[in-house]
Amino acid sequence: MEFTSKIKTIEWVNNTSRMIDQTLLPYELKTVDIITCDEMYNAIKNMIVRGAPAIGIAGAQGLSLAALELAKITNDVNEFLKKLEEKAQYLKSARPTAVNLMWAIDKQLEIAHNTISTVYGLTDAIVKNGKAMELADIEINKQIGEYGAQIVPKGATILTHCNAGALATVGYGTALGVIRSAYAKDQTIKVFADETRPRQQGARLTAFELITDGIDTTLITDGMCSYFMKKKMIDIVIVGADRIATNGDTANKIGTYTVAIAAKYHNIPFYIAAPLSTIDSNIKSGDEIIIEERDHNEVTHINGKKICPDGVKIINPSFDITPNELISGIITEKGILRPNYTSSIKKALSIN
Amino acid sequence: MEFTSKIKTIEWVNNTSRMIDQTLLPYELKTVDIITCDEMYNAIKNMIVRGAPAIGIAGAQGLSLAALELAKITNDVNEFLKKLEEKAQYLKSARPTAVNLMWAIDKQLEIAHNTISTVYGLTDAIVKNGKAMELADIEINKQIGEYGAQIVPKGATILTHCNAGALATVGYGTALGVIRSAYAKDQTIKVFADETRPRQQGARLTAFELITDGIDTTLITDGMCSYFMKKKMIDIVIVGADRIATNGDTANKIGTYTVAIAAKYHNIPFYIAAPLSTIDSNIKSGDEIIIEERDHNEVTHINGKKICPDGVKIINPSFDITPNELISGIITEKGILRPNYTSSIKKALSIN
Repeated sequence: MEFTSKIKTIEWVNNTSRMIDQTLLPYELKTVDIITCDEMYNAIKNMIVRGAPAIGIAGAQGLSLAALELAKITNDVNEFLKKLEEKAQYLKSARPTAVNLMWAIDKQLEIAHNTISTVYGLTDAIVKNGKAMELADIEINKQIGEYGAQIVPKGATILTHCNAGALATVGYGTALGVIRSAYAKDQTIKVFADETRPRQQGARLTAFELITDGIDTTLITDGMCSYFMKKKMIDIVIVGADRIATNGDTANKIGTYTVAIAAKYHNIPFYIAAPLSTIDSNIKSGDEIIIEERDHNEVTHINGKKICPDGVKIINPSFDITPNELISGIITEKGILRPNYTSSIKKALSIN
Repeated sequence: MEFTSKIKTIEWVNNTSRMIDQTLLPYELKTVDIITCDEMYNAIKNMIVRGAPAIGIAGAQGLSLAALELAKITNDVNEFLKKLEEKAQYLKSARPTAVNLMWAIDKQLEIAHNTISTVYGLTDAIVKNGKAMELADIEINKQIGEYGAQIVPKGATILTHCNAGALATVGYGTALGVIRSAYAKDQTIKVFADETRPRQQGARLTAFELITDGIDTTLITDGMCSYFMKKKMIDIVIVGADRIATNGDTANKIGTYTVAIAAKYHNIPFYIAAPLSTIDSNIKSGDEIIIEERDHNEVTHINGKKICPDGVKIINPSFDITPNELISGIITEKGILRPNYTSSIKKALSIN
């Protein structure tokens, strides 16, 4: 049975990247049309679109928009390519941790450099590839879902952190893609969603998309996970990833590492679900991953209202690193990678 | 050097229990005068006053108010005592987990039963004892602070969860009492305060009272603790307690257990700071502690605004149990109790 989510996060239509404005969820489901490369930079930076795979597609389509803009101002292929490279660097700087952004933009640059044609021809190739990557993302998610569904026990309650869902991808999800595929086979599964402060992607986005798709979902605050693990109310943890080192160390939303430690303490399996494009083959361990620091207002304010007194200090790391020793497996579109990750990742990437 | 906090949480003045309305913090520092037993029940239930030791004093003074009310309607000592018992049961039901509430109310009942006098005389004895317990609470906190300050390394950064501060007691604090005493000796110490969802006592109360007293405080979200532990930015964890079993298992605000597991994983000492009145000598382990479930709105709403979609389920346990194996020591007014807790607690209670 195929499961289709009602959520369409990002879609290329009529030379425009149409995306759900995720900053408005769960209060309002509204799409916004991104028509310039600048608008795309801001959409990524300000988390109109978020989630590593979705950011990747947004970046790729941002370069499609850049190509369309550049095609209007130059007929010179070399000048076009030079300016396209600049736009690529600019788009990459919008979110430094998500490796999928770098990966997707580099894929677009590859197309640009490998196509021998006019500016019009190059632009056409880039635009088509931006759309193709969008469609491929859903297929990859469904493959991740298929593999992942096999390790979800019948009637299981799955804990997830942040949003690695349809809203983090084009429209199916990685961690939530596994949940959707598991649900297609077994409607008795349940989900516990961590709120995921500071930005509450669990409460706002994961709860929203799972409820929209009719899946039984309980919202818990971030500190509660151990309580429910101890009570044997959580059978498995599945989360997404923003960047994976070649030894399996995984950067994901802040708080993931805390959940992983709690899972280990209670002997509960802890899985990462992510496309192979999340693996950064340039880095050997999580120590090399740069952690993005975000605005202090994310911690001090909720829905525009300050929640703490003046004078308190803030540190707001957006991600943390879960070391490979806490990870039971990494669910990818090519199967589930197991420890030793250095070897299983190397093999998966070489097949790729 | 003696450190005096600027915070006065609860104070008996002119046959009235005057308390800071903690639901208004950190936006407004306002006191409310509680003049009936009913008002006290609601103040405890609705967390106008919260924190195990403060709830204890509130309960004791609630019985003082009950006695003053009953003295107006009966001259019969037996009837007075019977109705006082009923009021005691009523007050105890306001917050089931905090053992200090039971302990303090029972202390008042002991006074009532052991005083041979008229209704007027009994009332006078109960009212005086309610005030005496208030004053004793500060002294006990300062003793806890003295003992605890000895285990805080010079220049340490201390992580705390929820609010075990002046606002959780009469006016000095247990976990934050230790921090105040440590700060009196060494102004280079720093505090990391967990936000403590759902009710954000860390962001609202701990940050407020530490900033008010001039102590360097960084607010973090609940999922972040492991990140800072891994970075060696946290040297020691000190939290309060709502109920301690005779084997050392400790009920404290939800999320404490998750922090304790993270501390263990990083080999960071994890301490409980609490008066001996927090120990429930009737229970052998944390399994026997009833966990209070609170209103779902605490999870779904922040400052009156809903943070999640309709249709999501909620479970809202107010406390969790940290097992004794995760606790490095329990800081009490009689010294620091160490494992084996069954034996060290027995010894401390017998000295008491």
